[in-house]
Amino acid sequence: MRSKVLIEQALESAVTASEAQGCPPRLAAAVRHAVFPGGARIRPQLCLAVSMACGNDDPGLAMAAACAIELLHCASLVHDDLPCFDNAATRRGQPSVHAAYGERLAVLAGDALIVMALGRFASSGARRIERLPDVMATVVQGVGMPTGIVAGQAWECEPRVSLAEYQRAKTGALFTAATRAGALASGVRAEPWAHLGDWLGEAYQVADDIRDVIADPGLLGKPVGQDATHGRPSAAAELGLGGAVEHFDRLVAQAIASIPHCAGAPQLRQLVQLESERLVPVSMTSTAGVVRRPMVVA
Amino acid sequence: MRSKVLIEQALESAVTASEAQGCPPRLAAAVRHAVFPGGARIRPQLCLAVSMACGNDDPGLAMAAACAIELLHCASLVHDDLPCFDNAATRRGQPSVHAAYGERLAVLAGDALIVMALGRFASSGARRIERLPDVMATVVQGVGMPTGIVAGQAWECEPRVSLAEYQRAKTGALFTAATRAGALASGVRAEPWAHLGDWLGEAYQVADDIRDVIADPGLLGKPVGQDATHGRPSAAAELGLGGAVEHFDRLVAQAIASIPHCAGAPQLRQLVQLESERLVPVSMTSTAGVVRRPMVVA
Repeated sequence: MRSKVLIEQALESAVTASEAQGCPPRLAAAVRHAVFPGGARIRPQLCLAVSMACGNDDPGLAMAAACAIELLHCASLVHDDLPCFDNAATRRGQPSVHAAYGERLAVLAGDALIVMALGRFASSGARRIERLPDVMATVVQGVGMPTGIVAGQAWECEPRVSLAEYQRAKTGALFTAATRAGALASGVRAEPWAHLGDWLGEAYQVADDIRDVIADPGLLGKPVGQDATHGRPSAAAELGLGGAVEHFDRLVAQAIASIPHCAGAPQLRQLVQLESERLVPVSMTSTAGVVRRPMVVA
Repeated sequence: MRSKVLIEQALESAVTASEAQGCPPRLAAAVRHAVFPGGARIRPQLCLAVSMACGNDDPGLAMAAACAIELLHCASLVHDDLPCFDNAATRRGQPSVHAAYGERLAVLAGDALIVMALGRFASSGARRIERLPDVMATVVQGVGMPTGIVAGQAWECEPRVSLAEYQRAKTGALFTAATRAGALASGVRAEPWAHLGDWLGEAYQVADDIRDVIADPGLLGKPVGQDATHGRPSAAAELGLGGAVEHFDRLVAQAIASIPHCAGAPQLRQLVQLESERLVPVSMTSTAGVVRRPMVVA
């Protein structure tokens, strides 16, 4: 898909610029390790896809938002993998940043990535600069306090937490930011597009719970069984595997149904469907003995 | 000083907004602990003082930059105190964030503060929105890769490092960002104002090295002797105590001499002189047997 190529190029250019003369070489290497090779880049793709569906009259601003969101996602993975959190030795099939570069550089690489996200907005070359504050505000909302992904991770440090609130903040918030920012970058109201991010974010979190139970760790690129090991709330534990898969399929259908009427709607529906099959493949669930109804996308 | 009161109010309002409904209570408490009570708030005061000297025709943007810089500074202190870095139990006379709330919330509070800094720019209400990208870029330069404070901290993870490069990035970069951002927020070229930040940042780092050797830990609010304990480069170790104090006084004089000709120059000179006496008081150095020449400010 062309937008994924453009996202990779923009991320490469952001990381390369940060490696300029004077940068401590091991920090530069740790940051590069955190960003490449990436995962599916689903959040920035979603942001760009919504921006395109909304006319995409300021592609620089849309790409800045998309890259900022991906860099913030990478930062959260680096910090979530730290020994004091998941203590995960692998990520995306390679050593986690702290496993490869040590805990100190993992903390700093995460920090540098958050700052780099701010830098994307500084150098967006936005044509419609008046849109910049709202786009940034929606990304901040998806990442920071009180209800962004940092807050989501912080719920793991609280004595009481509701599964919905935890998952909404830990994963959903950044998906919602992606669809909202895509709309705002194109000068369109964010609210009608928030639902797509909401449903997809929830679906993604449920998929993560499902994969943590039945995925092949080699294919997943990270250890499985982490939710049970860390006693984390999980849809698979709460609903059973079959119930979790059914819940996932329903969420994806709701995401698709929520897409506002616009010229780019068919492409967006297709993107969501492809992504859902990538996340929880029929082959994986059928191996685990779960029967699913085929999804029909209008 | 009036600008310090305004800075405290703006920080309070930023932190209060982040504690809105839905925020994990312990994360909110850890972030508040990291920001209040603050230190001298010298970086944001410097930013506002330069902005005022340059006409201050967009006070919202100047205050956003000042607060962002202070929040980023607070974030760096929280992460620097972590067990994997300095493992400092106290900061500003109270328990460090990780000592009070644990390592996980210290990592997350630092992250939340960096994101909150981005949020300051999103909600600055800047009148001259076209200045926003340059102001943000200069703050990013002071904090991120390749040569900001995150990179400065990362030099501690390298086998070889020059003292000048390390200190320039670890402390100086944010001072330079403060003076540059203050000028840019008022629509003035940044370069003539960079020198003030450069000299003051270097002076501040040397002061830190001096205080680590001879300060009263009760008054300093954090443990002393940390540079020797962690084998860190230090001006006091390199030049001796007397040499370091002489170096400090010379840097302050150069900072004062670098202030560009403008209406607000006398107030700025006074601010720098007051701050230098607060940093390395004559009473402290004379107790340690160091003789200093009195500073004459034109």
